[in-house]
Formats: sequence, C-alpha cells, structure tokens
Amino acid sequence: MNLGPSIARRSLLIAAAALLAACAQLGPAASDPLPSWNEGPARQALVEFVRKTTDAASPQFVAPAERVATFDQDGTLWVEQPMYAQVVFALDRVKEVVKAQPALAGEEPFKTVLGGDRAAIARLKTEDILKLVAASQSGLTVEGFHQAVKAWAATAKHPKFQRPYTELVYAPMLEAMKYLRANGYRTYIVTGGGQEFVRAFAEAVYGVPPEQVVGTMWKMGYAIKAGLPTLTNEPAFFFNNDREGKPVGINMIIGRRPQAAFGNSDGDRQMIEWATGAPGARLGMIVLHDDAQREHAYGPAAGLPDSRIGTFTQALYDEAKKQGWTVISMKNDWKRVFAFD
Amino acid sequence: MNLGPSIARRSLLIAAAALLAACAQLGPAASDPLPSWNEGPARQALVEFVRKTTDAASPQFVAPAERVATFDQDGTLWVEQPMYAQVVFALDRVKEVVKAQPALAGEEPFKTVLGGDRAAIARLKTEDILKLVAASQSGLTVEGFHQAVKAWAATAKHPKFQRPYTELVYAPMLEAMKYLRANGYRTYIVTGGGQEFVRAFAEAVYGVPPEQVVGTMWKMGYAIKAGLPTLTNEPAFFFNNDREGKPVGINMIIGRRPQAAFGNSDGDRQMIEWATGAPGARLGMIVLHDDAQREHAYGPAAGLPDSRIGTFTQALYDEAKKQGWTVISMKNDWKRVFAFD
Repeated sequence: MNLGPSIARRSLLIAAAALLAACAQLGPAASDPLPSWNEGPARQALVEFVRKTTDAASPQFVAPAERVATFDQDGTLWVEQPMYAQVVFALDRVKEVVKAQPALAGEEPFKTVLGGDRAAIARLKTEDILKLVAASQSGLTVEGFHQAVKAWAATAKHPKFQRPYTELVYAPMLEAMKYLRANGYRTYIVTGGGQEFVRAFAEAVYGVPPEQVVGTMWKMGYAIKAGLPTLTNEPAFFFNNDREGKPVGINMIIGRRPQAAFGNSDGDRQMIEWATGAPGARLGMIVLHDDAQREHAYGPAAGLPDSRIGTFTQALYDEAKKQGWTVISMKNDWKRVFAFD
Repeated sequence: MNLGPSIARRSLLIAAAALLAACAQLGPAASDPLPSWNEGPARQALVEFVRKTTDAASPQFVAPAERVATFDQDGTLWVEQPMYAQVVFALDRVKEVVKAQPALAGEEPFKTVLGGDRAAIARLKTEDILKLVAASQSGLTVEGFHQAVKAWAATAKHPKFQRPYTELVYAPMLEAMKYLRANGYRTYIVTGGGQEFVRAFAEAVYGVPPEQVVGTMWKMGYAIKAGLPTLTNEPAFFFNNDREGKPVGINMIIGRRPQAAFGNSDGDRQMIEWATGAPGARLGMIVLHDDAQREHAYGPAAGLPDSRIGTFTQALYDEAKKQGWTVISMKNDWKRVFAFD
C-alpha cells in the first residue's frame, strides 16, 4: 500500500502530536524557573497569575496572542540610584557634545557639567537634565547613537557597585521575564527613559527585542545623506513615556492592553492601572526598595527617605493595597538581588 | 525497567523530533502559495528574494528575528480610488459627530458635508479632510472607535464595486503577505492612514495584529473616567506617517530596518528607500494601477491620468528603475485582482 505524501505527512504529524502530548503529561521539568525568589506572597502572585491565564481549562485563560506583560526599567529591572543610568551617560558625553558644538561650552547646563563641581551638577533642574539628554543623542544616526551607548555601557561603572550598569540588573526580575516568556507572554520594556537608549542593550541584557521597547522619544529626521538613507536624532522632544504617557505609549507601540505590569514608582501608576483595570486575571507588581544592604533603601512608602528619583509615595502604596497590586519587598521576597550576589 | 520522568520525556522528545524531521523530508506541500500571480518578473523577484534571505546556505540569509516586510495600505493592499476609505468613513460619520457637538453644524467643513453637494465635497482641501478625520474619532475611546469603524465597514459599500471596502483587498498582495509570513517574515502595515482606523480590521482582513500596524496618529489622552482607566482619542494631530514620516514611524514602532517594502505612490518612496538602501538582499515593490477594467487606471508613470490621491509620479518611476525596485503591473502581473474575481 502506497500512502501518498500528504497522507504520510498527516500520519507522521498525528504521531508526533501524540508524543508531544504524552511529553506534556509528564509535567514541567523539575528545575525552578524562579530560583532567586523566596517563597511568599509576591512569588505566589506571579505563579498563580501565570497558571490562571495559561491553563486552557481556567476560566481566566488568555489566548497566546494576547499575552502581554510590561516592565518599567529604572528601579524595576535595574538600579536607578543615585542617578538614572541615562543621565550618567548624558553627563559622560558632554565633553564629546561640546567638541562637536564648541559654542555650547559657554552655555548652561553644559558649562556647569564641564566645570566638574559635583554639588552644582547634583543641583541641576529637570529641564537642564533633559537638555543634556537631548544633546547626548542629537545629531547622531540611530545606529551611531546605539554604538555610543554600547561603548559607554562597556566602560562606565556604577559608583557604589563598581560594575557596569548592565550587570546591575535584578536577577529575580530577569527570571520573571523569562518565566513569562516561557509561558507565551511577550515581555515589553515600558520606560520613562529614552526608547533608543534602552534599545541599544535591551536584547543583550533582557532578551527584549527592539520592537518590544516603549520609551520616551525625541524627534527623528529622515534624509538622504551622502547618498544613503539616514535616520538622525534631533534635539526636539517628541513623546514623554511617563505617568499618563505610559498607557498612551503602550497603545501606540503594542495596541493591546497588557495583562500584567511591573513598576516601582509613581511614574508607573497609570501603566499598572491600565493593565489591571479590566476584567480577567490581571497582575500589578511594584518593587519596593527596602534593602539598603544589598541595593538601596528609599521611598516614603516604607518610611524610608524620599528620593529625587523613583518616588514610591504613600499614595501609591495605599492605591496598591486598595487595588490588590502586589508590593515586592526586595529584602524579603528576593533571595538574591543580582546575578553576582 | 522504570525510566524516570526526565529520561522518558527525553525519549519521547527525540522520537517526536525524528517524526517531525521525517515530515519535513516529504518537502513542502505541492500547492502554489502565489496562485493569483502570473509568471513574470514581479512574481520572480518576490520568490527569489524569499529564497535568498531564508536559505541558510545563502550568503544573503537573514535571521528569522530580523525578517520584516512593510506594506503601505491604500492602493497597495486595497482600493484607494475614488476616495480613501478612511475619508469615506469620516464623511459618513459627520452626522453622528454633529449630533454629539451641535455647534459644528454651522462650521466648515461640516456645513458643506451636511449640505450634501457632492461637487463641493469633492473640492474640500486636505486641511478640511484632516479636520473631518480628526472629528470622526475624537472623543471616542480606543475601543469605541474600533467599534465605530467595524460597524461602518460592515455596511458601507464602494461606489464602483458595490461591496464592503474590506472585500476590496488585492488577492495577490494577501498571498504575498501570507507567503512572507510562512517564510518567517513579520508583515507590518505602514500606512499614511490612521493607526487606530486600520487596527480596527487589520487582524481580520490581513492577519496583521495591532502591534504590527504603523500609521498616522492623533493624540490620545489617558484618564480615569467613571472609575475606569480610559484612553480617549483627542482632536490634536500627533504624527504624520507618510513620506519622510514612514521610516520614522517604522523606527518608532519596529526599531528594525525592513528587508522588503511594498508601496504604490510617492508617499511610499522614503519607506522603500529606507528598506532597500542597505547591504544584503532587499526587495522594493511598487503597485502600478494600470488596470481600468478590473480596478482603476491612474498615475502619470503609466501615461495615465494623474489622480488627487495615490500619485505615482514619473520621478518615482524613474527612481524605481534606477534603484532596481520592481514595478508590479496589476494588468500583467496579477491573474486576478480580488478574491471575488
């Protein structure tokens, strides 16, 4: 009997499917996908959310195409104290910026930064910081800016940890991202930081491809330069992906409402509201920095000192309790903070 | 002999893999993935591009994660004459818009549209059209606007074809999208039309999910309304995803440079430049509307009458020849234009 190729293919596919199903019956591999998490309510909330939304028999099952989880970056995925990494990058680039545009040397805030008075630099206002950040990328092509960020990331070191910033990623959060991805979730970074800044290292550091990075944007200009089509960063601000901007940025880039959102500050409140304020199983998680020994301790929510950045106010804490969002205590919920711990 | 679960799983996985490999040996199913295309240079360029970029032995192989193809919508994926579908939608919605905001009844361009004088409506300027388009969505939530578009698409009919606009999709282009997807490409729509307008039906009509629609954007506002987190369309213009805007929009949403781009007018030139102006195998294709019988004939490139919309100028035609972009003749390269042909 000669089965035609299409019947033969069909039989083989059925046999393969049966074997794969038998495989699945054996249950998950024994290794723990969340080894850096202590047993406790935070780990439990994450595992329970994944179970409820991925078990086909669950009433709260979510179709794979709709599985989206969003993560703030600064203070949620990596260290944000004492200064956002992107601000350190912008300060470190001032010399090169002034070399390219010498007139800036006499202008503020460039003059203060070049002066090197640390106290004066620490007093710079947000609008000055934004000027430095814009100048750190403007005039560079998309590819050129990524190269500059990568070169900086390979050499700059955090003042407390004396390690590259890209090593100061929270091991439990990387595990949470991988765990969600292993369960069919696409993990997006939704940052108040620059979209192109984060894209320069997101794939290498977080396994997050460029199309899954939503961030603050500056204008981009398209033109033919020296015969080649070129995208160039311009100094004009375009979109603020923070606070109310986060749900807007999520809609712009993803066009879907996330099922889960992870943050650490008041800037993430609207993103978590948006992700959790709809029917079905939803997960909102907020990282509380209460571990002065292994990382930093700040945020009035924990009766800790307030901080210029990453503010986790009492109002957000109260809202989290009211809404059933899970507060992750770095001290209690995380077995280790960094991969090198 | 009792194999432990992990050995048993391993054996089953190996057996399943062997069966799947045997399956693959049977070769691809015999059916032609491009049945609506005539043999000729256009079909050949598409097939050759896919072969070169997906054959692991090819020097121009492209890794699956980097396989991105972008498609203009109006005039490239579906009919754009005699009027963009979104403009028809905006005109059709004027009555509802004025019902919600009665003061607009006395203002232009609403007054002209309500007057019903077709000649006067046809003379409306681009800025008036933009006002109508903005009004057709502003004040609606993201979900509410999608509902309005879907309801309109289910009932509105094209004046020439007397069919819903969503049926006026070019069968050969749908096949090209499916063929690219079957070969690991992600297919994005990159339209000068509204991002949310196209998202309302892109998945059903093209198999393109919301995160793969790049379009023109109006401002979106986030707020808690009646206790619920809400995203609302605002009347302010935000981003023009046309001409120079297309490479910028592609970078914003995808963050990758496409390997292939499909368009039909001067508004797509920069997108095709950007996609093809880099090393490796690249594909630029431009649809020429030279089939008055089955669709429409317009565009000075073909010595045909110019059109108010979808202009394919002689300059673009010359550039296509110079750059090696493929001009698709609807008349000669397509066996059928629509699924209902």
